[in-house]
Amino acid sequence: MRRKLIVVSNRGPVSYGRGSDGSRTAKRGGGGLVTALRSLVQYHDVTWIASAITEEDRALAGEAVDETSRDGSPYRLRLVAHDRQAYDWYYNVVANPMLWFVQHSLWDLPYTPRVDAAFHHAWAEGYVAVNESFAATVDAELARTPDAAVFFHDYHLYLAPRMVRERRPDAALMHFVHVPWPQPDYWRVLPREARRAIHDGLMANDVVGLHTERWRRNFIYSVRELLGDDATAKTVTAPISVDSTEFVELARSEAVLSAEQEILTGRPEKLVVRVDRTDPSKNIVRGFRAFELYLDAHPDMHRRVGMLALLDPSRQEIPEYAEYLGAIQREARRVNDRFQQSGWRPIELEIADDFPKSVAAYKQFDVLLVNAIFDGMNLVAKEAPIVNERDGVVVLSENAGAHAELGEWALTVNPFDVDGQAAAIERALAMETGERHERLEAIRAHVREHDLSRWTDVLLAALDRVAAPTRS
Amino acid sequence: MRRKLIVVSNRGPVSYGRGSDGSRTAKRGGGGLVTALRSLVQYHDVTWIASAITEEDRALAGEAVDETSRDGSPYRLRLVAHDRQAYDWYYNVVANPMLWFVQHSLWDLPYTPRVDAAFHHAWAEGYVAVNESFAATVDAELARTPDAAVFFHDYHLYLAPRMVRERRPDAALMHFVHVPWPQPDYWRVLPREARRAIHDGLMANDVVGLHTERWRRNFIYSVRELLGDDATAKTVTAPISVDSTEFVELARSEAVLSAEQEILTGRPEKLVVRVDRTDPSKNIVRGFRAFELYLDAHPDMHRRVGMLALLDPSRQEIPEYAEYLGAIQREARRVNDRFQQSGWRPIELEIADDFPKSVAAYKQFDVLLVNAIFDGMNLVAKEAPIVNERDGVVVLSENAGAHAELGEWALTVNPFDVDGQAAAIERALAMETGERHERLEAIRAHVREHDLSRWTDVLLAALDRVAAPTRS
Repeated sequence: MRRKLIVVSNRGPVSYGRGSDGSRTAKRGGGGLVTALRSLVQYHDVTWIASAITEEDRALAGEAVDETSRDGSPYRLRLVAHDRQAYDWYYNVVANPMLWFVQHSLWDLPYTPRVDAAFHHAWAEGYVAVNESFAATVDAELARTPDAAVFFHDYHLYLAPRMVRERRPDAALMHFVHVPWPQPDYWRVLPREARRAIHDGLMANDVVGLHTERWRRNFIYSVRELLGDDATAKTVTAPISVDSTEFVELARSEAVLSAEQEILTGRPEKLVVRVDRTDPSKNIVRGFRAFELYLDAHPDMHRRVGMLALLDPSRQEIPEYAEYLGAIQREARRVNDRFQQSGWRPIELEIADDFPKSVAAYKQFDVLLVNAIFDGMNLVAKEAPIVNERDGVVVLSENAGAHAELGEWALTVNPFDVDGQAAAIERALAMETGERHERLEAIRAHVREHDLSRWTDVLLAALDRVAAPTRS
Repeated sequence: MRRKLIVVSNRGPVSYGRGSDGSRTAKRGGGGLVTALRSLVQYHDVTWIASAITEEDRALAGEAVDETSRDGSPYRLRLVAHDRQAYDWYYNVVANPMLWFVQHSLWDLPYTPRVDAAFHHAWAEGYVAVNESFAATVDAELARTPDAAVFFHDYHLYLAPRMVRERRPDAALMHFVHVPWPQPDYWRVLPREARRAIHDGLMANDVVGLHTERWRRNFIYSVRELLGDDATAKTVTAPISVDSTEFVELARSEAVLSAEQEILTGRPEKLVVRVDRTDPSKNIVRGFRAFELYLDAHPDMHRRVGMLALLDPSRQEIPEYAEYLGAIQREARRVNDRFQQSGWRPIELEIADDFPKSVAAYKQFDVLLVNAIFDGMNLVAKEAPIVNERDGVVVLSENAGAHAELGEWALTVNPFDVDGQAAAIERALAMETGERHERLEAIRAHVREHDLSRWTDVLLAALDRVAAPTRS
């Protein structure tokens, strides 16, 4: 059944620029969220509301643009041009690092954060203001199509649902949280007004979706502790997924095959791969330390095993991220300085946004290390097995959302236990082919069956159960 | 009703040495826990089991010593001489910093802790071993007096109850947790075996006591998440308290009067006081920053207001504590460098164990700042108002256990919100005498009524309800 949907996310699926000949160019974004939401465009009548990022985006803001998705599906795009200073406060002070760090439990509480006048100001003049400008745009779209359901995304937009609800008591509103939900004591890092406004904003939705039962339980618990409300009836668990077919095709593409040649040239017998953004939540530094412990215990594997770390530099305008990249580089160098020999460097570190190379590494891993401190889902753990050609083993953090689905076929690690991670790498590298093959096939079968259309179906069905009828 | 009690705590109420003439000397310890437990000695037949700390303690270990409390009440003391290396692992690796940091949410999760072989080893050969030696001593005492109830204390002894229970299925066992109980996701910082053993050990008790409903709820929740058990029936909330009479007497003592003269000499018109151990959980660095923000906004108060920070150096063998003391000193110097003038230094920082001076400061504060990140109870917030002579105002962290009792008469602050703390200092300093007086009197009345005997009564009554009869 085709629906009218208003999708609202901070980043849109496309961003505009100007070519050298002065004509408008469109750059289609990647990233898990945008890929996932593309699946909505395919089956529904979507108006997508997102922030204007570039100058050309800003020039187009205010009017709806008719766009087409990668597969040719049409949708309307409506870009919102926020005040530039407000956007900086909203994005670089409140959403990142504050909310991201709260939701992934990353603060060093004896020292950080210092919630000061600058934060209070960024909250009021940035986060509240940008949410308000999103809400006004949603309201305008609802004036045009009152029977559309609104589908908000992620931690940038926690306040907008309440703002829309106040104007439109009968609108069908849904929110999906793509990040972990921490337990209420960690929300108390935020001042009382902010943490209450976040929970209250989400509770203005008819449906709140989270990836796993664990995050859902945490959400229900924190709504009860912080607001005294019961969120049970409006929450739903819907683990996001990936487009298997797309990855199978990608794996055969020229770009990936060429990147794969680079990896094959001089690859060691065994390859441990990690693919991440350089985000403190990804636990890259401890991963290197765990690999060092493995090398320490296995001199026979020197020259025969290597770690390939493909890391996309992330949010480098934010000091905590710049510092974390420094720590990553220091730790890799320390381990390499200790073990490297002519012709063998234990850790190959590549700091670049190189998606084809990531997919090539997915094909080539013997061990995939996903040791995230906390992770809403972690799509690498779903993507990489689909295309892997070596019966590779997934080592998976118990704090990644993907663990709820894939844990039984992965080797589970505690993200803080570097000794346990070294032991898991050892076990994975020593595992018999038969067992490796079975585990990998089980992951693949799960991901193929629990695909993106199941994710959207679960969410839209939940909306049908609780919201006013919104079918077109 | 007099009972036979076996009290078990890491530190005992007394520690022995040798005088210059070779005779044995006894040093009676301070600290909230020991003071609180003294109230048990007064009314019950107590055998107290504790770690031997000094050489002389070790010489006495193995036999029970007949001791008397400060008020003349007799009790038996039984010291346990642990293997020295095991004690170091137990105390300086597992209990502090690991368990303390977990229970107060103090880890910098992107970087610390690194749970490595050293930790796993310290757990097995230190924490487990020392708990085992406590359990064996408890067992020996129960062989002597099978009808005694065992009363364990705090985070050093989480495993001992299960070890005793295995030997003595019918013993009456109770545990009091003096620190905050974090929510289950923070317990997941520990490897699975360790976090399960801790919860399982506590669940071997008939009664588990915690200071507040909040910590009790967290405990029930984490037992449910980590063990799948229901702890509701065996938990009880019993906020620890202080001996008001003792503080009133102390306030008149020579030592305190003399320390008070030091404070009075050149005291500014208004005095903001904090009294803490130099523990990262106490949030001293942010407190200085908040005071700086206050001074920034109130040039008229320069020279007229000062902060007196009396800080007892704590656990300096542990790197995180040594570093935190460095951060405290740096931050105080930074603020002083910025504002000080001839004859006025905004922050007077004294790093010393000086109890009489602390009590003198209790008498003299206009504002008492207790902004702890997390705190099981915080006895300073109860002690200081009892003897204060200036209608002083208590500024109190919402994450201190004391807030559950005293919050309505204090000014509540979020420990991470330095701007909010500056505003609370401002409000406290501007408050009318009448309101200040009423708030202070209300705190005093509450503390007098909810005294130490109420704490023990609540716990022993809970034991009566759930445990086998253990009356003597």
